[in-house]
Amino acid sequence: MKVRVHVMLKAGVLDPQGEAVRHALGALGFEGVSGVRQGKVIELDLADGTPDSTITEMCEKLLANTVIESYRFETV
Amino acid sequence: MKVRVHVMLKAGVLDPQGEAVRHALGALGFEGVSGVRQGKVIELDLADGTPDSTITEMCEKLLANTVIESYRFETV
Repeated sequence: MKVRVHVMLKAGVLDPQGEAVRHALGALGFEGVSGVRQGKVIELDLADGTPDSTITEMCEKLLANTVIESYRFETV
Repeated sequence: MKVRVHVMLKAGVLDPQGEAVRHALGALGFEGVSGVRQGKVIELDLADGTPDSTITEMCEKLLANTVIESYRFETV
């Protein structure tokens, strides 16, 4: 089974990477870009039947830093 | 409008970051992880009515390196 995990910085946490992208889009002439946030997406190939609780554990232990990042996952 | 852009390394392009995650999950005792690919997700706040062609241009010019990365975007 294939699982896609999205990891984003929590609201309120400074995102310099996103800020750099916003600035660069402006410099390239794109207007109306009022905000950019950059995160990670991790695609996992897991054994069929891996329970959600195991995936949550993977996220909490390794994939996301839950102090500053939020995550969500979906089976694809 | 809010647009979410997903940027992933193309199939066949070595993904050392994903490989490191796969290795770390194994070291943490998670079994059955047969593959990991890591990519980026970029959330853009754009002016309402921004056409898809403009978003495609942003992706091609800045957000993705189309030689080694593929992208897709969705309005959320």
